[in-house]
Amino acid sequence: MTANLLYAQSGGMTAVINASACGVIEAARARPERFGKVFAARDGIVGALTEQLYDLDAQSDAAIAALRHLPGGAFGSCRYDLQDIATHRHQYERLIEVFAAHDIGYFLYNGGGGSMLTAERLLRVGESLGYPLKVMGVPKTIDNDLADTDTSPGFGSAAKYVAVSAREAAHDVASMAGSSTKVFILEVMGRHAGWLAAAGGLAERAPGELPLLLLFAERAFDEATFLAAVRARVTSHGYCVIVASEGLKDAEGQFLSISADSPVYAWIQLGGVAAGLAGRIKQQLGYRTHWAVADYLQRSARHIASRTDLEQAYACGRAAVELLAAGEHGRMITLRRLSDAPYRWETDSVPLATVADVECTVPAAFIDAEGFGITEAARRHLRPLIEGEDYPPFRDGIPDYPALRLELAPRRLPDFTLD
Amino acid sequence: MTANLLYAQSGGMTAVINASACGVIEAARARPERFGKVFAARDGIVGALTEQLYDLDAQSDAAIAALRHLPGGAFGSCRYDLQDIATHRHQYERLIEVFAAHDIGYFLYNGGGGSMLTAERLLRVGESLGYPLKVMGVPKTIDNDLADTDTSPGFGSAAKYVAVSAREAAHDVASMAGSSTKVFILEVMGRHAGWLAAAGGLAERAPGELPLLLLFAERAFDEATFLAAVRARVTSHGYCVIVASEGLKDAEGQFLSISADSPVYAWIQLGGVAAGLAGRIKQQLGYRTHWAVADYLQRSARHIASRTDLEQAYACGRAAVELLAAGEHGRMITLRRLSDAPYRWETDSVPLATVADVECTVPAAFIDAEGFGITEAARRHLRPLIEGEDYPPFRDGIPDYPALRLELAPRRLPDFTLD
Repeated sequence: MTANLLYAQSGGMTAVINASACGVIEAARARPERFGKVFAARDGIVGALTEQLYDLDAQSDAAIAALRHLPGGAFGSCRYDLQDIATHRHQYERLIEVFAAHDIGYFLYNGGGGSMLTAERLLRVGESLGYPLKVMGVPKTIDNDLADTDTSPGFGSAAKYVAVSAREAAHDVASMAGSSTKVFILEVMGRHAGWLAAAGGLAERAPGELPLLLLFAERAFDEATFLAAVRARVTSHGYCVIVASEGLKDAEGQFLSISADSPVYAWIQLGGVAAGLAGRIKQQLGYRTHWAVADYLQRSARHIASRTDLEQAYACGRAAVELLAAGEHGRMITLRRLSDAPYRWETDSVPLATVADVECTVPAAFIDAEGFGITEAARRHLRPLIEGEDYPPFRDGIPDYPALRLELAPRRLPDFTLD
Repeated sequence: MTANLLYAQSGGMTAVINASACGVIEAARARPERFGKVFAARDGIVGALTEQLYDLDAQSDAAIAALRHLPGGAFGSCRYDLQDIATHRHQYERLIEVFAAHDIGYFLYNGGGGSMLTAERLLRVGESLGYPLKVMGVPKTIDNDLADTDTSPGFGSAAKYVAVSAREAAHDVASMAGSSTKVFILEVMGRHAGWLAAAGGLAERAPGELPLLLLFAERAFDEATFLAAVRARVTSHGYCVIVASEGLKDAEGQFLSISADSPVYAWIQLGGVAAGLAGRIKQQLGYRTHWAVADYLQRSARHIASRTDLEQAYACGRAAVELLAAGEHGRMITLRRLSDAPYRWETDSVPLATVADVECTVPAAFIDAEGFGITEAARRHLRPLIEGEDYPPFRDGIPDYPALRLELAPRRLPDFTLD
């Protein structure tokens, strides 16, 4: 059958999610016998519910190709998951109405584990309501916590940002340590999984080259052990570079930091993991410290994206469309590793149900005996993911990111109010 | 006369200070009739006091050329200024002893305004003690607060980092704003001068392209005005990107944040300007916020250095040596702008005394009427400073920064204890 295709972006953004969009759109354009119009939902599933659909027919091939260079989500994302059909049947009925009104037979959701749950629910509802909807998941998350895939597009670039930043900061603190700052702390994302802290280990070429100390979300924070490890590194190297998961917890499982959205937040507050660690180090060890919080910078830094990651993001988008064209659906594209060195990989797929709402953390075999570093197995796994550069074009000193002129397709249905 | 030359790095590091070192060393090597050995002090003036001098004769030309790519301070820096000779005469006498013991006739200090005061004091002491020391200052500071120069090497690269990061983060928050985060805050360096906050204005190509809000160290923070400006941007664009000087002060001149070195610092603490602003925005406007603190990343990010800045850093190092060779001394190299577009510049120099311990802040003509943006004059001044890229070589996903094997020259004097 020929039907229209709807693509949507979901959850936190990455430096390369638009490369997946590019792969989806280019692959769909290459098969007009299967895919009619290509729509992109504004702000993820929210735009599908509210019938805000960008009609991409007006976009030139050059504009679509330029998506490879653009960080953030070109069409907008959302933090909004579909709830259970038992309590939110009206949402699903509305989606099917929107799809029917625009002849949408294919829905591709580009997101993480939570988004795959939404995709999987939609798949089942389409079946139960008798609407012929083919659903595919395109993986994306800087957290690298998706199941059944070698990595998740977005992670490699964030990991490269963390490794490069930690290495550069190490050169800085090493030169200050003689008479001033001896410890530098970089707080990275990962509420539940320490993959980006692990990426800090890639700042060194060989184990022990740099006095790194990684704090994983997977390991309970013990202050005494931590401080002793910091002191040991400063004693041996003169300085220490710490890469800490924002999701650091104590032995009782309590987060060491709280977010800006907490009601107790004010000028006087818990200031984040990095600031807290800096305070303890200063108080207990007397070392001058500096700390940085990478936050959105690590996931939007397209200028230092991993070429490997970009290629994988594009390939995942493309593969999702090709699988649909081949008659399959209800699956999420995955990446399968064929070899470590040279790194060879191919796309594969798994049923949406097997990845929906599953979170994969850093395996114990990737964390060294001391608990503050990565193992050789982790290096072998992670290093290829950050390999290669793919600089965007620059103009006047800043990246020349494309500005798409998007147009919404005319509405055909009444308004819909989100819960 | 032929004499040995001592080069030293001082204060906070930059992504390009080693390019100045490269300029110094290459220029000195090109004039063996004037310059004998080239030494580099370990950890700035501290190494000169303690007679820890790297003998650079063993370094190949290729190793010296590779300094262009290396962030941090290749020879170590210090936070240590010479005090007044009236109270610390022994320091000066020691320095002269060290210089005499190693036939050092030329001293080049690579630093900011405070370091130029040290250089200037040393110059006068050399004269008063009858030791023929020729002193030159090589400018360096990411704060851009040196007097009598178009800019300071190091600033252009930090400014580029801030502009690129703010632009990339803007793409991210724009795509989240529909259902989630509406405000992103980037805290940048500058305790007393808001030059790096001003650089945030370069994230947009034309005024009003992005909903930016800059908070300058030069302007007293007024919460009500600030919150109204945030609300206006979120209303018009859906989101807001704030770039804030760490040195933000209230109307009474009190810093809004305190550092990790404060004795009251603990897990519960003042968490920095960005965290504080995020808390106020959440409480008063109800917007979800994200915040980042760039800290050392902004000054060590050699991977995104400004080519203009690199060229200026190198030229300043070179010019200092050439001026010495021409018989001048007691001056700091400056940059003089010849035209804005195309940006043309040349090196010049001023007496050390005119720049020693002077801090230049962002002029009022560079801050717009609202107080949260930059003027066209500022754009014209700042834009050329971040132009051009100069990527370091990469290997295995991270920059291939050179590792110098430095060797200390044999000591000839007894130990010296720092105050």
